[in-house]
Amino acid sequence: MTSNSIFSLHIPTRILFGCGEIKKLATEKMPGKKAMIVISGGTSMKKYGYLDKVINYLKENNVESIVFDKILPNPIKQHVMEAAQLCRQEKCDMIVGLGGGSSIDSAKAIAIMACNEGDYWDYIPSGSGKGYPVNKVLPVIAIPTTAGTGTEADPWTVITNEELNEKIGFGSQLTYPYLSIIDPELMISIPPQLTAYQGFDAFFHAAEGFIANCATPVSDLYAIEAIRLLYKYLPVAVKDGRNLKARAKVAWASTLAGMVESTSSCISEHSMEHAMSAYYPQLPHGAGLIAISEAYFETFRNDCMKRYMKMSEAMVGLKSNRPSDFIDALVRMQKECGVYGIKLSDWGLKAEDLPKMVQNARSTMGGLFTLDPRPLTDEEVLDIYQKSYK
Amino acid sequence: MTSNSIFSLHIPTRILFGCGEIKKLATEKMPGKKAMIVISGGTSMKKYGYLDKVINYLKENNVESIVFDKILPNPIKQHVMEAAQLCRQEKCDMIVGLGGGSSIDSAKAIAIMACNEGDYWDYIPSGSGKGYPVNKVLPVIAIPTTAGTGTEADPWTVITNEELNEKIGFGSQLTYPYLSIIDPELMISIPPQLTAYQGFDAFFHAAEGFIANCATPVSDLYAIEAIRLLYKYLPVAVKDGRNLKARAKVAWASTLAGMVESTSSCISEHSMEHAMSAYYPQLPHGAGLIAISEAYFETFRNDCMKRYMKMSEAMVGLKSNRPSDFIDALVRMQKECGVYGIKLSDWGLKAEDLPKMVQNARSTMGGLFTLDPRPLTDEEVLDIYQKSYK
Repeated sequence: MTSNSIFSLHIPTRILFGCGEIKKLATEKMPGKKAMIVISGGTSMKKYGYLDKVINYLKENNVESIVFDKILPNPIKQHVMEAAQLCRQEKCDMIVGLGGGSSIDSAKAIAIMACNEGDYWDYIPSGSGKGYPVNKVLPVIAIPTTAGTGTEADPWTVITNEELNEKIGFGSQLTYPYLSIIDPELMISIPPQLTAYQGFDAFFHAAEGFIANCATPVSDLYAIEAIRLLYKYLPVAVKDGRNLKARAKVAWASTLAGMVESTSSCISEHSMEHAMSAYYPQLPHGAGLIAISEAYFETFRNDCMKRYMKMSEAMVGLKSNRPSDFIDALVRMQKECGVYGIKLSDWGLKAEDLPKMVQNARSTMGGLFTLDPRPLTDEEVLDIYQKSYK
Repeated sequence: MTSNSIFSLHIPTRILFGCGEIKKLATEKMPGKKAMIVISGGTSMKKYGYLDKVINYLKENNVESIVFDKILPNPIKQHVMEAAQLCRQEKCDMIVGLGGGSSIDSAKAIAIMACNEGDYWDYIPSGSGKGYPVNKVLPVIAIPTTAGTGTEADPWTVITNEELNEKIGFGSQLTYPYLSIIDPELMISIPPQLTAYQGFDAFFHAAEGFIANCATPVSDLYAIEAIRLLYKYLPVAVKDGRNLKARAKVAWASTLAGMVESTSSCISEHSMEHAMSAYYPQLPHGAGLIAISEAYFETFRNDCMKRYMKMSEAMVGLKSNRPSDFIDALVRMQKECGVYGIKLSDWGLKAEDLPKMVQNARSTMGGLFTLDPRPLTDEEVLDIYQKSYK
């Protein structure tokens, strides 16, 4: 497999990166006058002072703001609808997503529903969504305080329809953030285990995008650099969260992996994980990906051998001559980050739900299966779940 | 030297790349209804049918067009002003630059003057320009038929004020092309020597941007890949212009090097060459750069040793342990492309003009000297010219 020789590149987001760069919120050209700031239902954005910083910098920039603070780790449609209604009432003309991927993804979805009638699922193009076109979206500013989703550099938003157990990624050219500020100083308070879960989410964006059949020369460039940086610096950031150099490298790798999402794509590993956390919303996305990753990448080992070896070389820095070197390096990296051996049963998944998840992965995010290195059968998908179960 | 840890990334241009992609001109969303197509005063755009293709695809897309066909290899202000006036008369609402960097750069400058009063030099922020702000620009579509300038992926336009002997690069966030289509099939007719000149222009965009003191992690990524690709494929494209794989690799490297221009910068090597071709417009830009390159990079050899070794490693594929490996590889690459040993005297430059060119380089493009790995003295600049003279 080689990357496609016909491709496009268009990431319209303005990206500001660096320690302390959050202050640019006070001086950058703003796309509106009144912001809804979207944060999680947890306490950290308030406790660490990030929310106050954002409110004050916006105020310096003549932008007033209101706060919506209910977002769940696996964000749900109900909150998108509720926030969008508030947004219309309060006449907000821009949305700021502050926090992890859940808050930023919600900000994008709210930005859609603030300008479009009906239900959010009316616009979802897969699962039981109706796929109506989206022609207008409020501008979004993304301020990640975790390093993993890459949503600051891609158009995607992943929301769960809690009534239907459908967790679906969706986006268009309109849902790229207007501005993203990645300030690694906002990430030093993330605990070790979450650092690892999120970092592996970024890692799999890059690794999946690198073996996707829609990979391009530009996504390859971003992917290999993200893989290289994460292998080297994620274990450091996990062990010492206050190491700002490691935090910055991991944050940049995560943004690069978001750029992979924008130029190549996730593949079925992400569909499979979405099915898992659609049924078990307490399962962190990164933990779910780690749990299935060894069996998953083992399945494609002989389908893109050169690409596995290239990933291994980027990680280890040594010439590779067998594709399993990549899987060895992946396992080693998970061990160094203290997250090797996560099993689906650890998170309360029931064995009898696995076949249902195979179907859910196909029906809600089936498109990603078409981007796999080769088509997987349902038996193979079930086999990956089962090998990752206990 | 390491790259800056605070940086930004914002390339708003939509880039389409690939053999045959010119046809997308018929289907992409257009930013206007009437185009001025800007081409050179030469015959090739007509002879090879590229102009007809562009006119016809635009027509399919409901865009009518007029043609301005006077651009010189070193494009001059007079033509910018003349075309901009025609553009207003004809009520064109978009500009298509078709051809080499001269045509695309002119398209950008015409797009400025179609919306702004007075003289083009009123807006130039250096030399004897007045530096007035530019607030509006017509949308530009860039269709390169050469691989070198990278102007399809950066905001810069380099125009010569023929009365003042000032050749100055200028641009802003507004002068990024709206859309760029890089179709390597349009490049197969470039003769070997021009292929080499243009390819080395791209090479120096990447190499200068890599050792610039404003280099960033993202410009580094683009630069090293451009350097790697050009070392490997430029000699192939020079020797066999019909080798589409080599043409495509060189074209993509040139676009990547344009992205380096957008995320890092050229340094004083470009200022020095602009001074040369401001006085000797018959000197091709790439040939001028090649002529001074060995002495130029020799001058900084001990100022960014690690970066020279990294460039060498990207070129040769072997571990480097001395910075001169880069200069050796550069010389070898020039020999393989049949352009080693170009001297300024070969192009009719007069020895007594060299001190004047030192001053011109400083006064017209002095800003780039501040981005050098270390400050150069006037004596050193003169020394580079003299070593490259005969």
